[in-house]
Amino acid sequence: MRFVRYGAVGAEKPGVLDAEGGLRDLSEEIDDLSGAVLADLPRIDPERLPCVAGNPRLGVPVGRIGKIICIGLNYSDHAAEAGMEEPEEPIVFMKATSALNGPNDPVLLPRGSQKSDWEVELGVVIGQEAKYLNEDNALDCVAGYTIVNDLSERAFQTERGGQWTKGKSCDTFGPVGPWLVTPDEAGDPQNLAMELDLNGAAAQRGNSSAMIFTVTQILVHLSEMMRLEPGDVIATGTPPGVGMGMKPPRFLQEGDEMALRIAGLGEQRQKVMRDA
Amino acid sequence: MRFVRYGAVGAEKPGVLDAEGGLRDLSEEIDDLSGAVLADLPRIDPERLPCVAGNPRLGVPVGRIGKIICIGLNYSDHAAEAGMEEPEEPIVFMKATSALNGPNDPVLLPRGSQKSDWEVELGVVIGQEAKYLNEDNALDCVAGYTIVNDLSERAFQTERGGQWTKGKSCDTFGPVGPWLVTPDEAGDPQNLAMELDLNGAAAQRGNSSAMIFTVTQILVHLSEMMRLEPGDVIATGTPPGVGMGMKPPRFLQEGDEMALRIAGLGEQRQKVMRDA
Repeated sequence: MRFVRYGAVGAEKPGVLDAEGGLRDLSEEIDDLSGAVLADLPRIDPERLPCVAGNPRLGVPVGRIGKIICIGLNYSDHAAEAGMEEPEEPIVFMKATSALNGPNDPVLLPRGSQKSDWEVELGVVIGQEAKYLNEDNALDCVAGYTIVNDLSERAFQTERGGQWTKGKSCDTFGPVGPWLVTPDEAGDPQNLAMELDLNGAAAQRGNSSAMIFTVTQILVHLSEMMRLEPGDVIATGTPPGVGMGMKPPRFLQEGDEMALRIAGLGEQRQKVMRDA
Repeated sequence: MRFVRYGAVGAEKPGVLDAEGGLRDLSEEIDDLSGAVLADLPRIDPERLPCVAGNPRLGVPVGRIGKIICIGLNYSDHAAEAGMEEPEEPIVFMKATSALNGPNDPVLLPRGSQKSDWEVELGVVIGQEAKYLNEDNALDCVAGYTIVNDLSERAFQTERGGQWTKGKSCDTFGPVGPWLVTPDEAGDPQNLAMELDLNGAAAQRGNSSAMIFTVTQILVHLSEMMRLEPGDVIATGTPPGVGMGMKPPRFLQEGDEMALRIAGLGEQRQKVMRDA
């Protein structure tokens, strides 16, 4: 099943895609794709639901996201391009939930930003509370998978004092979606082709098979430290091809367009604008 | 005014203290101390409100907290005891909202934790959305002040790969409260005595006058990077006296009791237990 949330910002309704990719209204069945619903997603035949007319905006496909946990340098070739050592344990940082953005909404460069960069990532959406997971049960807490663009202002991230959160939490720097894809439909999370195009040219190309720490290992590791809750999103790291790794570095400019794709999880498209 | 939220975990009701410190029920006036209410806190005479009987549990005095932003090494003498350089710009990291805990609820050491530590901090609660603040208007977005114990598992924080979030986000590692104190009542945020006792003996002693970056400067800095939203909490750093700075280091053990006080903001008391 491929779930979505559609409509105006802050007033999204739940929906589901039918076999032809048409949008169906789920709002008679559930209030939202959030909280306890994520542990028990409706197994309804989409063809029985009303069609949604037109081509509405898509929002983040999960409501009431409590935390966005990001894994750093989880692809060895990306660690190399970033000039960093391959980590021995997952590098964990947070992206502010105020950075969340619909999958096709504009991305706004913050005032003064000169080094904003893209990162296509496999997003894992938690469906039920989890703590002290082990490798056998870890994936049971997953509601589904999605795409995250872990946008990053590199100067804020690395030249302004210490921790990475500053560069990761700018408003609009967290596009998530378009779909929440259930695990049965997404298939093996460690074998998904990933790509990001900038203005129609290939920038990032990778496959989740190249993760240093698998989704299972990440879930086990995180749940040793903190409770995972329904609606939490984990961004599992990015393959090579980001702007700061190019020679010379290439950062986002007003008018740029990004397209992100992960096999089976759909496509995001974002225009870059400058914040007023 | 000194606002509280009282009652069972997840079912807290809003309240306010009267002149004698008695608890009055605010639930006929407002639904919760969260969201837009924080920009327009009720200016009602507490004596006109019904008394609350008994001695109910106090919860976090703010509902629907979207992010907990922490400032690292913001007291030069604490930076010294941590063996770190004084930062040139505020060090920013996040604590997971799943770590939130009532001010007097037990603190649970996570499985395997050997190096859990205390940090009394002045907490700033945001009352209205803010972006690109300047030094003249920054404090206008503040709903009030509170105490935060920025509990930290030092091994998770510094020995397990990279970023600090891991050691800061353990469940129960974010006691906030007891009160949300309005700015008019809290007084100058840069002149508040702060202390933390461990088992009745002085551990931390400090004053917010010793902050490297003031509350105003922190708000300006953060709002350059990200939107601040009603209910966000900023923990502004800790004075010296934490366990890792002792010789030899002294970390939390089962049965320990912490008491935290900031002048005018009340007291937190937490017993330390081990997570099952």
